[in-house]
Amino acid sequence: MKFRDERSRSSTLLPVNHSTEQTIPSDRTVRLLDTTLRDGEQAPGVSLSPDEKVEIARSLERAGVAVIEAGSACTGAGERQAISRVTDLDLDARVTSFCRGLEHDIDLALECDVDGVHIVVPASDRHVEEKVGTSREDNLEATAELVEYATDHDLWVEVIGEDGSRADLDYLEELMETALDAGADRTCFADTVGHTGPERTAEAVSRLAELGPVSAHTHDDLGLGVTNAIAAVASGADLVHCTVNGLGERAGNVALEEVAIALSHVYDVETLELEQLYDLAQVVSRATGVQLPPNKAVIGENAFTHESGIHTDGTLKDDKMYEPYAPETVGRERRLALGKHTGRAGVKATLDEHDVEATDNEIAEIATRVTELGDRGRRVTDADLLAIAEDVTGDDRERVVELLDLNATSGGSVPTASIRLEVEGEERVASGTGSGPVDAAVSAVREALGSMADAELESYHVDAVTGGTDAVVTVEVTMARDDRSVTVARSEADITRASVEAMVDALDRLLATDRQPLTPADD
Amino acid sequence: MKFRDERSRSSTLLPVNHSTEQTIPSDRTVRLLDTTLRDGEQAPGVSLSPDEKVEIARSLERAGVAVIEAGSACTGAGERQAISRVTDLDLDARVTSFCRGLEHDIDLALECDVDGVHIVVPASDRHVEEKVGTSREDNLEATAELVEYATDHDLWVEVIGEDGSRADLDYLEELMETALDAGADRTCFADTVGHTGPERTAEAVSRLAELGPVSAHTHDDLGLGVTNAIAAVASGADLVHCTVNGLGERAGNVALEEVAIALSHVYDVETLELEQLYDLAQVVSRATGVQLPPNKAVIGENAFTHESGIHTDGTLKDDKMYEPYAPETVGRERRLALGKHTGRAGVKATLDEHDVEATDNEIAEIATRVTELGDRGRRVTDADLLAIAEDVTGDDRERVVELLDLNATSGGSVPTASIRLEVEGEERVASGTGSGPVDAAVSAVREALGSMADAELESYHVDAVTGGTDAVVTVEVTMARDDRSVTVARSEADITRASVEAMVDALDRLLATDRQPLTPADD
Repeated sequence: MKFRDERSRSSTLLPVNHSTEQTIPSDRTVRLLDTTLRDGEQAPGVSLSPDEKVEIARSLERAGVAVIEAGSACTGAGERQAISRVTDLDLDARVTSFCRGLEHDIDLALECDVDGVHIVVPASDRHVEEKVGTSREDNLEATAELVEYATDHDLWVEVIGEDGSRADLDYLEELMETALDAGADRTCFADTVGHTGPERTAEAVSRLAELGPVSAHTHDDLGLGVTNAIAAVASGADLVHCTVNGLGERAGNVALEEVAIALSHVYDVETLELEQLYDLAQVVSRATGVQLPPNKAVIGENAFTHESGIHTDGTLKDDKMYEPYAPETVGRERRLALGKHTGRAGVKATLDEHDVEATDNEIAEIATRVTELGDRGRRVTDADLLAIAEDVTGDDRERVVELLDLNATSGGSVPTASIRLEVEGEERVASGTGSGPVDAAVSAVREALGSMADAELESYHVDAVTGGTDAVVTVEVTMARDDRSVTVARSEADITRASVEAMVDALDRLLATDRQPLTPADD
Repeated sequence: MKFRDERSRSSTLLPVNHSTEQTIPSDRTVRLLDTTLRDGEQAPGVSLSPDEKVEIARSLERAGVAVIEAGSACTGAGERQAISRVTDLDLDARVTSFCRGLEHDIDLALECDVDGVHIVVPASDRHVEEKVGTSREDNLEATAELVEYATDHDLWVEVIGEDGSRADLDYLEELMETALDAGADRTCFADTVGHTGPERTAEAVSRLAELGPVSAHTHDDLGLGVTNAIAAVASGADLVHCTVNGLGERAGNVALEEVAIALSHVYDVETLELEQLYDLAQVVSRATGVQLPPNKAVIGENAFTHESGIHTDGTLKDDKMYEPYAPETVGRERRLALGKHTGRAGVKATLDEHDVEATDNEIAEIATRVTELGDRGRRVTDADLLAIAEDVTGDDRERVVELLDLNATSGGSVPTASIRLEVEGEERVASGTGSGPVDAAVSAVREALGSMADAELESYHVDAVTGGTDAVVTVEVTMARDDRSVTVARSEADITRASVEAMVDALDRLLATDRQPLTPADD
């Protein structure tokens, strides 16, 4: 349900972005490092194949990130193969590997032909003494040796002070000065466990920035990932470590797309090709299997969706009314949703899209009934709206396709289904097989419809099921035919029935529009 | 897979939280307003029944939020009934309604017997002139009249300047001063469209704070929801508008749980009973149908989960090594996950939990094979680990329960299934009915097992399916018996087969441990 362009007009009122005292001037150069392939992949349950790493790296290059941390060479042979595949791409971005504070890790990174390494050395006493079991003094010495070893091999070197946010800042400064003196290209302030706030980040980063180029690595355990990244940039960091969709250990790293849009929109500092962000989000979501949450900046399904009457009405009058920036900025489109909070403007706009005419009174009545449906907790699709509209306007139509009977067997080796449909008054029976009960039933439906089944299943989505095996399952089907598409949602305990009902209803809607030409041809 | 307490020891090293210049002193009183029931519910596709609103309001009260915005009385009769149900609870929290700038809206709120109202008046020129179609001057007058009307009816009144972040700050100040002069209890700086950054928020809030008590209402379109909320508090705001799980229009409002943990952990400012946060998140997720994203601060499935070898090993040594605060702080537990990045420490800890012994060499081999499984993109459950361990240690065991045959019919009016199992060498056949194919098959399994089926299905989860009807479906089943639980995941195109295989495998694991006592009893 996209807006039509002509409906919204651009406003001449310019947004007022800025305070009198911006902490990041617009002429600052800030670059982004993406660690989706390393820290992002360390998210529990996430594992990327070499092919997937290559696909993501290409997308990152298109978006224009400055550094791609392709993995951690010490993880294993499979990981090294994946990193090598990325370095083989010969990208403009610098391709790097994470290394623990061991010469051997640097050797393994060299095997993958990386441009540079991130050497992680402990910075807090907890990590120096308890985790690594060394002393502050020995740690300085080891760090200097590692940096020299890496630079001797012509590697670009960033030294990350692990758990830097919990470190004694005097020691952190000494450690990082040692690294720079030994030849490191830059240091990195790491809030490894997502522990700190913007004040301490600012204090630490300003001190490190006086020594040389400094990066920021922030995590979101307190929800402060972006806050700290912005504070770090304001304090002199010029490279920000991020992951696509905010993947990563625990609550994740700071999200690449949020850092990029915040720096652009609030500070006029451009770091990336913003219009690549949504594509990037989808590539990573598909590869990792981690769904995009609906309410997430830039990438969420609802980020540019309007349902409530006030917001829809306002947005239809002026698309800037309830949006900070145009969805196209990040490669997306605006959407209208129907539901409990829908008003007349949203109903009218959606009916227009389906070429359905209705009087003002009818629209008011339709809006009331859409609201009632939403009130009962129902997701309201455009198919629901059209059914209500037909009822209200009295513009009854006969169904083209109706489901009479359905039977699917599954669990065995060949899932099979039979179906009985009424198609334009005529009963048709067919069967089909498939990879599961739904797939078998869908093939039976196609068989029964014959040449009429030329509609494409554009998307088939089942909400995650949590609870018991008797939980109600919500299925949403979008079918397209020529340039028209219809979405239908069904919620039932039986996933097979919900799926087939939704699909048959969508087909019925799509076929209804050209019933006239089809019927004579059938006679 | 919980850690055992004795395994982790508390560190004596205190975390270093603070900078020398904290912007929010620890003696500041800050309270939270929750608008999950109003702004949260305006998220596309979300609709809460009166019962659900009551349940959420009770949870919010338990957590100790100061103000519960229960809805928008003008939305309709159903909404007013829901708000009235909440005011009837007689909570300690102030219960309020959102009102557009209309006397009629205040009347409707009064019908619901609310303690107070949020009167929303336009603040930016875009909203004053284009949306409402009035002038700056007339808007001041209307605002004063509305506030007087509401206070005359003994309502607590907060005036929200809509789109305040894009307003001329001089006008915003004049508008809010007018509201306070007319008797409003407080004003609210609203970044309605999630448009601004911390500098402008700070500037606006400091100016409003000089006039009287001021709240902050921030959205997350730029990922700056928390950043701006913190900046607002630092500049004098003492009430922060939030939603549970960050629900709300578009990218959502700032998340209640993030504001609460950030203020507590970084600034020692307590706003809520933090240990209620996870319960609250789950109540809202269930009611709204919006799943909790895995990588989300406080509430995400992975927020306290460790998979990578370095992190697991470190955490086993000292639970503060890779966590900013204990999971129990927010009502949760730490978890270990197995996968591509698992190391020996994680494998050993999980085997210990299942009382499986293995030598160091065997553990190394098991860890390698767990990593390989993870490398192929597989989710690795404890059942997978146990199967690998048996193979490596040569500690073969015979299956107690094995699936021989399965057949389920669905789509029709009574989903039915038959099953053939081998139970301790003996073949058993049974049938069952249920609400869908999986539910029917599960009842057949229980029937076949008889008294042995005393294990409880603790959770049944199906990942969301996106793609075609032939997409592979991942089912994860956790079954519990006495004080032991086993999780099994299966991925297959046939949801029925995946579900039953996972369940039978889990049962087999659970029954295996007490096969000895059971077998004689069966003879």
